[in-house]
Amino acid sequence: MAEAEKTTGEKKDENVVFIGSKPFMNYVTGVVMQFTKKGSNEVIVKARGKFISRAVDVAEVTTKRFLNDQGVKVKDIKIDSEEFENKEGKKVNVSTIEITLGK
Amino acid sequence: MAEAEKTTGEKKDENVVFIGSKPFMNYVTGVVMQFTKKGSNEVIVKARGKFISRAVDVAEVTTKRFLNDQGVKVKDIKIDSEEFENKEGKKVNVSTIEITLGK
Repeated sequence: MAEAEKTTGEKKDENVVFIGSKPFMNYVTGVVMQFTKKGSNEVIVKARGKFISRAVDVAEVTTKRFLNDQGVKVKDIKIDSEEFENKEGKKVNVSTIEITLGK
Repeated sequence: MAEAEKTTGEKKDENVVFIGSKPFMNYVTGVVMQFTKKGSNEVIVKARGKFISRAVDVAEVTTKRFLNDQGVKVKDIKIDSEEFENKEGKKVNVSTIEITLGK
């Protein structure tokens, strides 16, 4: 990754965990590591469509089971919609969620 | 339902739309009707587990497509976990969401 990126937008993206179809615990570990190893004060869990339920699961499990004793809590939740073109070229809307976890 | 219940907790429950596996538009219509026919100022969209994604879809579609001109917006979002016993008698956690829509 280019050095220029590192100094601009890169740092922020490090604190984002985007939820998809990998094993559930991968995401939990990812969030926990951000707080414990990388010393982040804030991690944003993002998801779209059907992965939104999983994002909520990740937020709940990390805050209540793994990071409870470190005072990490759900600080903010935002929902929104994005428009994108599907394979058939049709415009469809997908819901999104951003859950901000922080100390 | 008993008359006593109607005068106590009942009124509040009328403003809650619980998302499950019925057709998507049933829930959208349910929320829209609460605001337009019943004159509610606030409707809470609730869901558990995999239906959380749907609850976000319902909130997005109702506020952006149907009730936008009436100034209905997402006012608050809460996530939590509930413990319950599954069929095998094992205690499992399920995530929950409550999305408050209001004028």
